Amino acid sequence: MPSRSSRNSLARLGEFRLIRRLSRRFGHTRPSVLRGIGDDAALILPTQGTALLLTTDLLAEGIHFDLRVATLEDVGYKAAVVNLSDIAAMGGVPQYLLVALAVPSTGKPSEIEALYRGLMRAARAYGVVLVGGDTSASHSGWFIGITLAGAITPGLALTRDGARVGDLVYVSGTLGDSLAGLSLLRWQVGRSRTSVHRTDAAYLVLRHLRPTPRVQLGRLLAAHRLATSAIDLSDGLSGDLAHICEQSRVGAEIDAAALPLSPAARAYAAANRIDPVQLALNGGEDYELLFTVPPRQEPALKQVARRAACRLSHIGKIRSPAFGLRLNRGNGSWERLVPRGYQHFQPHQPLGTEAGHRR
Amino acid sequence: MPSRSSRNSLARLGEFRLIRRLSRRFGHTRPSVLRGIGDDAALILPTQGTALLLTTDLLAEGIHFDLRVATLEDVGYKAAVVNLSDIAAMGGVPQYLLVALAVPSTGKPSEIEALYRGLMRAARAYGVVLVGGDTSASHSGWFIGITLAGAITPGLALTRDGARVGDLVYVSGTLGDSLAGLSLLRWQVGRSRTSVHRTDAAYLVLRHLRPTPRVQLGRLLAAHRLATSAIDLSDGLSGDLAHICEQSRVGAEIDAAALPLSPAARAYAAANRIDPVQLALNGGEDYELLFTVPPRQEPALKQVARRAACRLSHIGKIRSPAFGLRLNRGNGSWERLVPRGYQHFQPHQPLGTEAGHRR
Repeated sequence: MPSRSSRNSLARLGEFRLIRRLSRRFGHTRPSVLRGIGDDAALILPTQGTALLLTTDLLAEGIHFDLRVATLEDVGYKAAVVNLSDIAAMGGVPQYLLVALAVPSTGKPSEIEALYRGLMRAARAYGVVLVGGDTSASHSGWFIGITLAGAITPGLALTRDGARVGDLVYVSGTLGDSLAGLSLLRWQVGRSRTSVHRTDAAYLVLRHLRPTPRVQLGRLLAAHRLATSAIDLSDGLSGDLAHICEQSRVGAEIDAAALPLSPAARAYAAANRIDPVQLALNGGEDYELLFTVPPRQEPALKQVARRAACRLSHIGKIRSPAFGLRLNRGNGSWERLVPRGYQHFQPHQPLGTEAGHRR
Repeated sequence: MPSRSSRNSLARLGEFRLIRRLSRRFGHTRPSVLRGIGDDAALILPTQGTALLLTTDLLAEGIHFDLRVATLEDVGYKAAVVNLSDIAAMGGVPQYLLVALAVPSTGKPSEIEALYRGLMRAARAYGVVLVGGDTSASHSGWFIGITLAGAITPGLALTRDGARVGDLVYVSGTLGDSLAGLSLLRWQVGRSRTSVHRTDAAYLVLRHLRPTPRVQLGRLLAAHRLATSAIDLSDGLSGDLAHICEQSRVGAEIDAAALPLSPAARAYAAANRIDPVQLALNGGEDYELLFTVPPRQEPALKQVARRAACRLSHIGKIRSPAFGLRLNRGNGSWERLVPRGYQHFQPHQPLGTEAGHRR
């Protein structure tokens, strides 16, 4: 708990006044929100004829974020993206945000506001409004619990269990940027020299700190019934593909040469003698969408890529369960594709980085 | 992070297997849940013609609970009650639970299961099903983020802003039991002798560890349009009454003699020379409902009390804003009623206890 004397501390501000301040600043809602911040629960009129999507994530300091390399505004931004990306992966429209915050004794109201500023910058870009939350003390670091509610027409939701043998495997954007960006940030803290050009480094760091949730892409894939399954890439492609295969009871082949890497990520991999394919397969926190599409839908998918202003790459194919997960290295060389993406509680070190534990 | 060698540790179990295990054990849902645990978001068909209620709370070890005096099953139970009580205070039907958990490196799968067991025991008693969650590591203690969704007919929700001058102030159950129970638990840890009879102590401890959310009462108050405002007592009567008065822009008088205390709480107060009125006003975590009712509704309220099998006490009256908040001590003696219930970040010590920080 903060001491009485600490200037501008939470103790002086008090929870109620803090809530009022946050509510005034960030609590602008819309007619469907009958009650937002400040009552026992938020009260919302659901969009007629839609199903409800609900997702929650808890981000812990030292586990999911590191305040030596990210500001609280960055952390807030990413916390929103983690959840926006979950709704995107279901093909839904994100709508309502709730924030449960545990603040260490050193936390200042200005820091809480910075966190909310980041959160709301990401949320508002997708039309999401803040409807509630909870703020309390923490004996040990910042903890941020985010809940995001969204809507989708029943029957259109993208799930993980619909991939069929013969479907094509697609991924949006580029892979491995976020992990490369995190490594560069850590090196800066350690005062090591950055191994890539400043422009590349800035791009990778931005991809790590301010990822783009693929909300528009998810909505189009669902609305046009193009994808048979989808997941967002939080743990890394190899691990997240394994989720789809497990839940759809199928296998998959991935074409190493087709994995999309940004020029900056390629430069990073080259400078650090990292296999770019491994970076693409096992880098986490890209928040791109991985999805499967029947071959007949490819022409329609090209149109969607244009409308979503988003690069889409055909990286493989769904195979029988007996095939398992395999990586085609080209020239007839195949490897077993082992899920290496970060698992919480697994003392696994992501490849090519000292990054440690991320979600 | 847990070491590789720790037997039965989270590292060995892995997050995915843990989720599967919890899902098998606790993830039984209902037809309205199209997708529960295991996809990017839960997918739910809302009840026709209802509005959505959403509430979230984050409970931190050492702030909201103390594992020296409560088991993880107790903590889980209370975490569910905190949120059930929020939905009850809106008059709604609690339905869907999401759990975001940060587990310290010492945490065992059996402890996570105990926490879920407590959560689900409380949740299932009110027909609530588990639809999603997130489990990750914590560098420092347990953090439990709960989100609860519920339903209510639009227009019937109980809010904090509807109290009118002349309304009667009511409270359910008895007050101060939970704080008395917590103090007794702390004394046991400190090996101090308990100052009350064993039966009374057991009652108070149970009221602290396993409070009853007033879901049925809230639903009846809303359905019969009896209450003009309502709030659940988490911070203590004095503070929570202040919320209603502030948001309704009214004052209130409370009759000290009418405050409901259990025989056990009276015995506790007498044995420890604590003013029972202060215990009732400022004890937190009772999770009773505080609500206001127009006088003409009193006969209907009596019927509701019978149906909800719940004691209701008329403890005061809504007055003009200029009146402020006052306590009638009897014999013409009045005091200003100062909100003393626990506020996070306020270095306030609840009265008559070394309890410290609670929500």
